[in-house]
Amino acid sequence: MNTKPVKAFGSTSATEPLHEMTINRRTVQPHDVEFEILYCGICHSDLHSVHNDWGGTTFPIVPGHEMVGRVTAVGNHVKNFKIGDLAAVGCIVDSCGHCEYCNNDIEQFCDEGVTFSFNSPDKILGGRTYGGFSKFYVCHEKYVLKMPPFSDLASSAPLLCAGITVYSPLKHWGAGPGKKVGVLGIGGLGHLAIKIGKTMGAEIIVFTTSPGKVKDAKRLGADDAVLSSDKEAMAKYSQKIDFIIDTVSAKHDVNEYLNLLHHDGSVVLVGLPAQPLEVSAFSVVHGRRSVAGSNIGGIAETQEMLDFCYKNNITADSEIINIRDVNNAFERLEKGDVKYRFVIDMASL
Amino acid sequence: MNTKPVKAFGSTSATEPLHEMTINRRTVQPHDVEFEILYCGICHSDLHSVHNDWGGTTFPIVPGHEMVGRVTAVGNHVKNFKIGDLAAVGCIVDSCGHCEYCNNDIEQFCDEGVTFSFNSPDKILGGRTYGGFSKFYVCHEKYVLKMPPFSDLASSAPLLCAGITVYSPLKHWGAGPGKKVGVLGIGGLGHLAIKIGKTMGAEIIVFTTSPGKVKDAKRLGADDAVLSSDKEAMAKYSQKIDFIIDTVSAKHDVNEYLNLLHHDGSVVLVGLPAQPLEVSAFSVVHGRRSVAGSNIGGIAETQEMLDFCYKNNITADSEIINIRDVNNAFERLEKGDVKYRFVIDMASL
Repeated sequence: MNTKPVKAFGSTSATEPLHEMTINRRTVQPHDVEFEILYCGICHSDLHSVHNDWGGTTFPIVPGHEMVGRVTAVGNHVKNFKIGDLAAVGCIVDSCGHCEYCNNDIEQFCDEGVTFSFNSPDKILGGRTYGGFSKFYVCHEKYVLKMPPFSDLASSAPLLCAGITVYSPLKHWGAGPGKKVGVLGIGGLGHLAIKIGKTMGAEIIVFTTSPGKVKDAKRLGADDAVLSSDKEAMAKYSQKIDFIIDTVSAKHDVNEYLNLLHHDGSVVLVGLPAQPLEVSAFSVVHGRRSVAGSNIGGIAETQEMLDFCYKNNITADSEIINIRDVNNAFERLEKGDVKYRFVIDMASL
Repeated sequence: MNTKPVKAFGSTSATEPLHEMTINRRTVQPHDVEFEILYCGICHSDLHSVHNDWGGTTFPIVPGHEMVGRVTAVGNHVKNFKIGDLAAVGCIVDSCGHCEYCNNDIEQFCDEGVTFSFNSPDKILGGRTYGGFSKFYVCHEKYVLKMPPFSDLASSAPLLCAGITVYSPLKHWGAGPGKKVGVLGIGGLGHLAIKIGKTMGAEIIVFTTSPGKVKDAKRLGADDAVLSSDKEAMAKYSQKIDFIIDTVSAKHDVNEYLNLLHHDGSVVLVGLPAQPLEVSAFSVVHGRRSVAGSNIGGIAETQEMLDFCYKNNITADSEIINIRDVNNAFERLEKGDVKYRFVIDMASL
């Protein structure tokens, strides 16, 4: 298969900084869309993958899976995109297409496993997929999203992973009028959970360990923000919260949050702590509660989320950076020093 | 308030064997039902409480909360019971009666906490409630169950705790035709989960660590029984099980069972391991799975369960003992040496 060289930023080992490199992209196939990447968000998963924190990273790696761009070429069977259209790609770029999960628009749970936009076996070219820290991306049209014309296009990029990661469980667990929804941890995911959950009509209660984020949570739209060390404020919500979106990606005690849940409530993990969490049977047995998880969302739901955010003027609070500063951004992200998402202006590559 | 002395079996410290003692029961109040206890099951919670494994035991303690008996006196406002009727009491003997949970027939989650049939503060007499290892019980009619005339009345006693503990989650999570339900651990709870789940129409897959129980699980009605150390047999059910009733009361790895679940499936804890269980975020995030819990059931649902079991001829496999052998039974229960429930013939007291 023909390929073309594309400029990218990646790394060749877990201990090396990201640097410029050249990768190959396939030339467009009949159902492919090629787009120039305008903006790419930086997610904690990019950091984990580059550092090989979860194992399973194949080097060289080009991270990036929150891509917004403009179509530069389409295959001759593509009907829904034309050159010049805005387009976006998130985490998923392929799945089996015929299992129960794919048939039900929850490709993220595909029986054969999805192909992620980076660091997954590339079924077409061989080797591994390379992500959005690059000039161009090529993807089957089925996994390309129609990108609404956000006035702040850069800040819409994080919706492709952070946005759908919180939108999907907020919708699945029924965020809406009359519901009290907790958000645990205010970072890239948490700050979007506040905005999206509030827009869905729920009452949003934020739980944070950072005194500095209490005020900011309210600015972002939370109805209340509780410092989790404030036992009295925590007790006020005992058995009152319908469900909690838990965005914390480090080990933490979920039992104290389980105790805030109304019966049949869930703490829904969307972060991925590398270490297991300890769950006391007593915390779930009383009130028929649960510790659940949720992982991104399907393609149709991602499109729905983009349209919802466009209609309601929701984007991430972001800091736009030059790709030459990406290693510094990774360091700052590791320390939680960003409000709330780095987005790379890919014109800088 | 007038009381009358009642013969019982209990203990005065965590290290002492159970022995005969005399307790006081209140004389019947206008809404009370008094019954002579004919049979009382022995549950793991009795053992934990007598040994003060969870803390919180007040001595002297008289355990026992799976009571079946015959009415000997009723208060003058009682309409639904008369002397000579069969009656039963399980775990709950009082609750606030006015909170959201009580109003929705899930008294087990009462906002003010329920009064258990033993070792709970006794709101009427003061002190603590004394359980069913005794000659008589007195209880507000609201918490007394109508006991159907099971031909094996002794073996029906364990339904009052073990039965409702598995019936409630089987029903809540939708056991029925077309559903694959896992049962983890074959003891007092697990063997009833097989019988009840199968009768509800579900396909029952048992997971056990005991080779000896594989065959017995099938005798009890399971469609399949898998030794959890048999990786190949386990893999056959990967992503296939709708939910699992986890009856294991010791620490164990729930992650390997989470991986057997279909998307949106739950491992439902009904045992109460004293130590927390370790849950990997990866195990729940993929497939939007959960670790949930369930605790007994409300009074109306307990009555429904008794009627269901009577109609379908379901009782526990039990070993009937003399109360003089209760300490030996406790020792054997601790080692899991019972198939599958001890029931005390209270005529022996």
